[in-house]
Amino acid sequence: MRAFIIGRFQPFHLGHLKMVEDLAKIHDYIIIGIGSAQESHTLENPFTAGERHLMISNTLENRKIYNYYLVPIEDIHRNAVWVAHIEAISPPFHKVYAGNPLTKRLFEERGYKVETPQLYERKKYSGREVRRRMIAGENWEELVPEEVANVIKEIDGVQRIREIAKSDEEIEYEEKSSE
Amino acid sequence: MRAFIIGRFQPFHLGHLKMVEDLAKIHDYIIIGIGSAQESHTLENPFTAGERHLMISNTLENRKIYNYYLVPIEDIHRNAVWVAHIEAISPPFHKVYAGNPLTKRLFEERGYKVETPQLYERKKYSGREVRRRMIAGENWEELVPEEVANVIKEIDGVQRIREIAKSDEEIEYEEKSSE
Amino acid sequence: MRAFIIGRFQPFHLGHLKMVEDLAKIHDYIIIGIGSAQESHTLENPFTAGERHLMISNTLENRKIYNYYLVPIEDIHRNAVWVAHIEAISPPFHKVYAGNPLTKRLFEERGYKVETPQLYERKKYSGREVRRRMIAGENWEELVPEEVANVIKEIDGVQRIREIAKSDEEIEYEEKSSE
Amino acid sequence: MRAFIIGRFQPFHLGHLKMVEDLAKIHDYIIIGIGSAQESHTLENPFTAGERHLMISNTLENRKIYNYYLVPIEDIHRNAVWVAHIEAISPPFHKVYAGNPLTKRLFEERGYKVETPQLYERKKYSGREVRRRMIAGENWEELVPEEVANVIKEIDGVQRIREIAKSDEEIEYEEKSSE
Amino acid sequence: MRAFIIGRFQPFHLGHLKMVEDLAKIHDYIIIGIGSAQESHTLENPFTAGERHLMISNTLENRKIYNYYLVPIEDIHRNAVWVAHIEAISPPFHKVYAGNPLTKRLFEERGYKVETPQLYERKKYSGREVRRRMIAGENWEELVPEEVANVIKEIDGVQRIREIAKSDEEIEYEEKSSE
Amino acid sequence: MRAFIIGRFQPFHLGHLKMVEDLAKIHDYIIIGIGSAQESHTLENPFTAGERHLMISNTLENRKIYNYYLVPIEDIHRNAVWVAHIEAISPPFHKVYAGNPLTKRLFEERGYKVETPQLYERKKYSGREVRRRMIAGENWEELVPEEVANVIKEIDGVQRIREIAKSDEEIEYEEKSSE
Repeated sequence: MRAFIIGRFQPFHLGHLKMVEDLAKIHDYIIIGIGSAQESHTLENPFTAGERHLMISNTLENRKIYNYYLVPIEDIHRNAVWVAHIEAISPPFHKVYAGNPLTKRLFEERGYKVETPQLYERKKYSGREVRRRMIAGENWEELVPEEVANVIKEIDGVQRIREIAKSDEEIEYEEKSSE
Repeated sequence: MRAFIIGRFQPFHLGHLKMVEDLAKIHDYIIIGIGSAQESHTLENPFTAGERHLMISNTLENRKIYNYYLVPIEDIHRNAVWVAHIEAISPPFHKVYAGNPLTKRLFEERGYKVETPQLYERKKYSGREVRRRMIAGENWEELVPEEVANVIKEIDGVQRIREIAKSDEEIEYEEKSSE
Repeated sequence: MRAFIIGRFQPFHLGHLKMVEDLAKIHDYIIIGIGSAQESHTLENPFTAGERHLMISNTLENRKIYNYYLVPIEDIHRNAVWVAHIEAISPPFHKVYAGNPLTKRLFEERGYKVETPQLYERKKYSGREVRRRMIAGENWEELVPEEVANVIKEIDGVQRIREIAKSDEEIEYEEKSSE
Repeated sequence: MRAFIIGRFQPFHLGHLKMVEDLAKIHDYIIIGIGSAQESHTLENPFTAGERHLMISNTLENRKIYNYYLVPIEDIHRNAVWVAHIEAISPPFHKVYAGNPLTKRLFEERGYKVETPQLYERKKYSGREVRRRMIAGENWEELVPEEVANVIKEIDGVQRIREIAKSDEEIEYEEKSSE
Repeated sequence: MRAFIIGRFQPFHLGHLKMVEDLAKIHDYIIIGIGSAQESHTLENPFTAGERHLMISNTLENRKIYNYYLVPIEDIHRNAVWVAHIEAISPPFHKVYAGNPLTKRLFEERGYKVETPQLYERKKYSGREVRRRMIAGENWEELVPEEVANVIKEIDGVQRIREIAKSDEEIEYEEKSSE
Repeated sequence: MRAFIIGRFQPFHLGHLKMVEDLAKIHDYIIIGIGSAQESHTLENPFTAGERHLMISNTLENRKIYNYYLVPIEDIHRNAVWVAHIEAISPPFHKVYAGNPLTKRLFEERGYKVETPQLYERKKYSGREVRRRMIAGENWEELVPEEVANVIKEIDGVQRIREIAKSDEEIEYEEKSSE
């Protein structure tokens, strides 16, 4: 039986890892959906789907976890068909783990049984906190698996998020709507 | 002659009903556009176009109002062609009722005569207030026609909007960009 | 109980009318989906969704048929989520009438019971034949309800389809990909 | 007064040039729409909008023609709003030159006066013939302005169209739907 | 080093398997792109991306091949940015295997080194032939790995493609543009 | 050599003009990208791409600046492919001027050399200030070239932005999501 879980994983941190390790023990296979897959280079979503794919698989492989599928899930901006969209792009699954209330609701309306995943030390490990520390120049590496830190360094990820975060109050450049 | 009016109707309330009743008396036909038709399951737009379609037609039919067309209008995110988009998807019309200044302006730039509709007791009846009461557990049914309340109960609408509204500050789930 | 049927209705002809009349007798409500709603001005789809909406409602109203909903359904080019898309944009339904094998299959995979509608004198009445006669200057009016013929004349529909059909072999204009 | 003309210009050939020269003499400004701007790397549309932009402006500038605007026009696959889309993305215009019957019809339905442009020696000069000769290894340069030939050489255009045209009957690679 | 290969895999057959086995031996990792991922339920593309994902991973896992990534790649209908789109959604790669000339050309224009993969007994093993046999009721199972046949049976795949292929010449149903 | 610069130019003001004049002196050609080209009729983006095209070209032509290309660039909401999108729709270029950090980063990641353009008296001249003055009824004409003021008057631009800005707190019209 396959269980489905989705996250943006910006980036994949130790809280995510613990959760995945636990689920991988109790299910035959877990399907990890990489959400908002079309987004990148924003403060909320600095890394591309491909970069996140690499972070997660490198981490899991090094811990000899093999019973997973990774599927990038793009937002399609039609909530009412989002679950059907996931069903089309992902191997079939029968159980869903979702903490976000909207996600939970959308799956329940489609008849899925949804459970809230246990997040490990959720105040300590969160994507928001990792990104904040990257921008602030604080120690972010301790919040993520070593493999993830390596990928981030390889793609110059810290510099990227700092430049995106840069806002020059004095000079107004209106080139691109921030999105 | 057909007159056109558009609203999101989240949900269709007694203020909307009064307005539609008045317009249906003075025009041969009114075309009711259900705006933002592709949106659902958000705080601003909890109900699908289909659910809103049902709310409105059940309400009007029970009051023996038949001279209307219902047309779901999706946002296409190109304001400059939005009116042309409506013209394509709706039966032709010659008069427009619009209160929202942007809507008014877009139709006027295309040469339509636009009138501001009278909203009935607008402080009392508004979609925002109905949704607020649903979330807060207050009496929302008194603000909408009975038929609308029935549809909302049939689709478990109150529970839906409450779950969407739920935000768990402690636990950060970054599964899906809220949209 | 509501039954759902979809067609492109280019244009709505007497075969369609007979089918709708029969279904409207045996169901509380029928939902008529206007398919490929985003298409117009092509040989296969000369009329806009709005024009088709008008054709169908004028015809049914004059025959005192009121128990129907009209819903324009745009193609979203993702077959696997097409039914979910319809469910979002249409009032809920429990039965489906579909003759096209793909449509039938997509609904069956979603758990709907699908029946093949009876088409009336299908060799005589077909959208293809009506359009062919329009282009050829033959008697097309006898294949459609009078109300439909009136709408088509009102929108200069015959001239439109003739001009679209015009292809000037000698002169090559490569302005727009035909679509 | 500005006149509008649209073509795919795959590539811009001597027939196009003669037509543009004539129109540029009788109008204050001409707006040249580069149609199907989102397409490239196909047999029908081998060159990107940017490459075509360069071909046309290099050619006109060298002939000291300055009274033109170049605007890439993407297909939006909604014929009924295509003209409104053009009106949004192009400087305003009052006259249209169109040979393609569909283009002509769409502009006329929107109230524009449309004239058929004179194509110069249209049997000799056509995009189809230029592309055919490129693939066949025949003399294509004589059909286009020198500036266009230079751009095509600069972008390795002949090799590109040949490779796109290559089809290997023996080996079936199903990697990408041809489009 | 990672190598990239893309195919539609409708379905994944023994020719594909041989090719993947060979590449998996000589590269650290291979990235298998599932092309036209948004398509399903057509004669050319009967299976969803999720179903194809399952076919491929079940097959490779049973043969103890683990050094691969599976990435669904949607068509975005802008050839000029297709490679950049793949780069965003896939882990980074440095080598590309492509047989389709268009795919080859698009990657080469972006600076990649592209090699033509060896297809195993290509006349015998092809997606087209497998689908033909499914429709015709011939022995298709012998052309695919057992795991793929199991997935296809699990999803009622043969019945699906037969129904899609059904065309009823006598009855004309114009419900949905075939796409 | 061609240099590329992008802005939303809502509207094109004297700061923009000074910058373009300087760049046009030191480069053979400059390509001016009109960003967010699909947006119009909003507070941030009141003018269509076509209107902005006209503002800019009228201004430059009157100052006898001819060595520029104007290209409307639509947002495609996929940052990772945005630069590739621009490369497809614009004539090729080798240098980029960008002040917005995100724009800068996206081009640098693609290997371009990016310089920050000098903005002239940036506190005085900004799109935001021009729009604010238009809404407030203050002297906005002194911030823009005369040609721009003429175009804005021609399209009734001040009235447009005032109406868009109008919000009627008392009456709640929920017709269209503001976007």
